[in-house]
Amino acid sequence: MTTERADESAIRALIEGWARAVQARDLDGVLADHSEGIRMFDVPPPNEVRGIEAYRNTWPPFFDWLERGAAFELVSLDVTAGDEVAFATALLGCGTEEELRQDPDNRLRLTIGLRKEGGRWVVSHEHHSFPARD
Amino acid sequence: MTTERADESAIRALIEGWARAVQARDLDGVLADHSEGIRMFDVPPPNEVRGIEAYRNTWPPFFDWLERGAAFELVSLDVTAGDEVAFATALLGCGTEEELRQDPDNRLRLTIGLRKEGGRWVVSHEHHSFPARD
Repeated sequence: MTTERADESAIRALIEGWARAVQARDLDGVLADHSEGIRMFDVPPPNEVRGIEAYRNTWPPFFDWLERGAAFELVSLDVTAGDEVAFATALLGCGTEEELRQDPDNRLRLTIGLRKEGGRWVVSHEHHSFPARD
Repeated sequence: MTTERADESAIRALIEGWARAVQARDLDGVLADHSEGIRMFDVPPPNEVRGIEAYRNTWPPFFDWLERGAAFELVSLDVTAGDEVAFATALLGCGTEEELRQDPDNRLRLTIGLRKEGGRWVVSHEHHSFPARD
């Protein structure tokens, strides 16, 4: 396996593990591979969330929503990796049963930016959005 | 200047030039540094736009909106560049005069993914969103 392929595989495993941690409402797992300085563009306001503590604080309300039966499922994942910097794009099924019944093809769009720090990949950026309603 | 700094500067110039081309409603300028296989997560539906022709087709309606007086102004831009892969995050003031008067701090969030192809940086991914309304 080339280095580029190895990096892509490592990043794919990282993101799949992160998505499983979200589904399991495992906060330590969600934070395990994230940079102290992470910058997130989240679905709800504010415009941006900066730093690991602010990032951590966004998850408990989302976990409450998942616990009431909402889904968070990776549908597709593409990784573009260099030696030290990478980004990934993903589409997810994300919504309550009612929302997914009404609009089954609606997707959460996710872009993730990563850096290699001390030999391991860490997430330094996430951008989550749904397409705007007409 | 280190290679990393040179790459960051080149990418910053590329994105600033792209934003000026958007403002000038210069379609060739908007497309000048984009990959054939660009994948965009745009503000309006659909979930994703794939390929340079589909990307090109999103711009004329946006140019019409700009021509009626809407703004598209970079407020901040951060670049993370490796040797072959990079990503950038930006916040923009984007809206009609009326929208910006009602909500002056609302921002368009933009994440851009880039690859070096044949020695030059090209944009292979864009993700545009506003924070969801409460």
